[in-house]
Amino acid sequence: MTANEVIRAPVAAVEAFCVSAFTACGADAETARDATRSMMHGSVHGVDSHGVRLTAHYIRALEGGRLNKRPKPELRRIKTGSGLLEADHAQGARATYCAMDHAMEMARESGIAAVGIRNSSHFGPAGAYAKYAADKGFLALVVANSDSFVRLHDGTERFHGTNPFSVAAPSGGPDPWLLDMATSAVPYNRVELYRSLGVTLPVGVASDAKGVNTTDPHLAEMLAPVGGEFGFKGAAIGGVAEIFSAVLTGMRLSPEILPMGGPDMSTPREMGAFVLAMDPDGFIGAGIVEAGMRRYLDLLRNSPARPDCRVMAPGDREWAEAARRRVDGLPLDPVTQDGFRTLAATYGLKLPF
Amino acid sequence: MTANEVIRAPVAAVEAFCVSAFTACGADAETARDATRSMMHGSVHGVDSHGVRLTAHYIRALEGGRLNKRPKPELRRIKTGSGLLEADHAQGARATYCAMDHAMEMARESGIAAVGIRNSSHFGPAGAYAKYAADKGFLALVVANSDSFVRLHDGTERFHGTNPFSVAAPSGGPDPWLLDMATSAVPYNRVELYRSLGVTLPVGVASDAKGVNTTDPHLAEMLAPVGGEFGFKGAAIGGVAEIFSAVLTGMRLSPEILPMGGPDMSTPREMGAFVLAMDPDGFIGAGIVEAGMRRYLDLLRNSPARPDCRVMAPGDREWAEAARRRVDGLPLDPVTQDGFRTLAATYGLKLPF
Repeated sequence: MTANEVIRAPVAAVEAFCVSAFTACGADAETARDATRSMMHGSVHGVDSHGVRLTAHYIRALEGGRLNKRPKPELRRIKTGSGLLEADHAQGARATYCAMDHAMEMARESGIAAVGIRNSSHFGPAGAYAKYAADKGFLALVVANSDSFVRLHDGTERFHGTNPFSVAAPSGGPDPWLLDMATSAVPYNRVELYRSLGVTLPVGVASDAKGVNTTDPHLAEMLAPVGGEFGFKGAAIGGVAEIFSAVLTGMRLSPEILPMGGPDMSTPREMGAFVLAMDPDGFIGAGIVEAGMRRYLDLLRNSPARPDCRVMAPGDREWAEAARRRVDGLPLDPVTQDGFRTLAATYGLKLPF
Repeated sequence: MTANEVIRAPVAAVEAFCVSAFTACGADAETARDATRSMMHGSVHGVDSHGVRLTAHYIRALEGGRLNKRPKPELRRIKTGSGLLEADHAQGARATYCAMDHAMEMARESGIAAVGIRNSSHFGPAGAYAKYAADKGFLALVVANSDSFVRLHDGTERFHGTNPFSVAAPSGGPDPWLLDMATSAVPYNRVELYRSLGVTLPVGVASDAKGVNTTDPHLAEMLAPVGGEFGFKGAAIGGVAEIFSAVLTGMRLSPEILPMGGPDMSTPREMGAFVLAMDPDGFIGAGIVEAGMRRYLDLLRNSPARPDCRVMAPGDREWAEAARRRVDGLPLDPVTQDGFRTLAATYGLKLPF
């Protein structure tokens, strides 16, 4: 095995390693559980940018003081279906699962409920929380903002974060309908990947330091909003995430958020987020909604496709990848392996590979 | 004046003409008021595809029996913050303003509320209803599906409608923040415009009858979802509109909806829609939200732009156009003029031009 080789490790072993690393650094049980399950959502479904590669990062933030190892998140329920979760600088997944639990409980009574999250931090894959709610029978919407990385339409500086937008709905089958998208044209890790592969980027997805479009991944300093010529649409959906997560909660706007990567790992980032849950029984009813989703997905998946293509529902690619990875194990890139080795040495843990 | 000339007519005169035409055809006062104000939203803000050109169409649908001239929309409030509006085959704007009124009233109590609309029809510009709520201090989301016109990502047949997605927020200024987008790459009227101008379409926005991308507007038989290479994102946002408006209400999916243009103008189209309102006082509070929106919009509008460009917030282009049109009058294309002339002759009305 060379230093540049991706290796595979069993899902359960990786999960146990992450929980034990968080626990060893002094994080409480809820933080260890929630940080791990959000990253496992990413790693299992093939969203490696938001997978277990973040373990070392989160632990640096916990050790540095940016994140609270033993937070006491508290719900301020303001109206029947709305409120704010004061997250007490919890790791983002800890805050967001907690907020979604409250939103679902409130939605049983009010049909729809939303919780704005205050004083949270990077929450990883938005889809983890939307899927969590859909698996319990709710329709869900989850958004957050993040430090500036995406130019505006016609703009030439980093403004919005990659501001994720996720919606899920129970499908009447084992897996929900799940949209989980960045509002940038491509994820930044695509730029990093193309750099290492020496491949040029598609036209119009990234810009250089002056905001001029470039296809050279080495010159890419910011991302374009999704939509190409119609990037005003992508920028505006990024704006929806910004308004719901930061404005409605009184938290920092994207350009005001400290960079995720540091160097400052001790100052809390004061980030907002927003989760919404709808109970189908507050509308036409769970039975009719599930039948409707089955009818919709049958029509969609059987819709004629371009040669050598298949029309997929949002999430279908991820469920297939998860099935493969549960058998083959999770791919761990060299940087993630190194991070795991350092954590294992620091805390005296057994590696999962 | 030739038959092909666009003429301008004063806003108030056009508005009065539309109300009188609906009234003359036997529609009740609420239908005349709401159908007119939704179209005026389109015409005043430069969204002519959803402006007063639709007057003749809606009146044909009212006369034909597709739409109920004197509907009795009824709210079934199911939980504190959720319910269904049985629209009784009302004209779509009549149903949607009514649903938003209920949603805002419920949101005062529950912080957030959503109303699914049943047995409605084409509702015109989604932004009209989101702006209506934002003008009253609410954040709002409005979606609907419509008859099939947009292919799926990798798909080769019409599937979703142009499924509009609109979000608005009070801005702390006279005009709200307003996103109002079709989830197709371009509106179909852009295809029609380019046909008449003999101009080729941008790459990847439309397909021919076999679903193959074409830049020839004469061959365009369906639209692509917004996002270009990343059209799976646009198709999925179209899916959000589909699920919230049709599945959650038990109404027809896009491929099941009778074509807007007929020939059948007598059968109700049984369309759904979905409106959501949030009261800022259910979250961090209206004062902080307005201050946050002002800070956000100041940062955004002052963000550096490409040469000869200016960064605009969603809606800015429309507010500027509205200011011009309130002075210069509304442009009426020849087809709309003819429609007005026919209505004037049929019902003995005075033309606004």
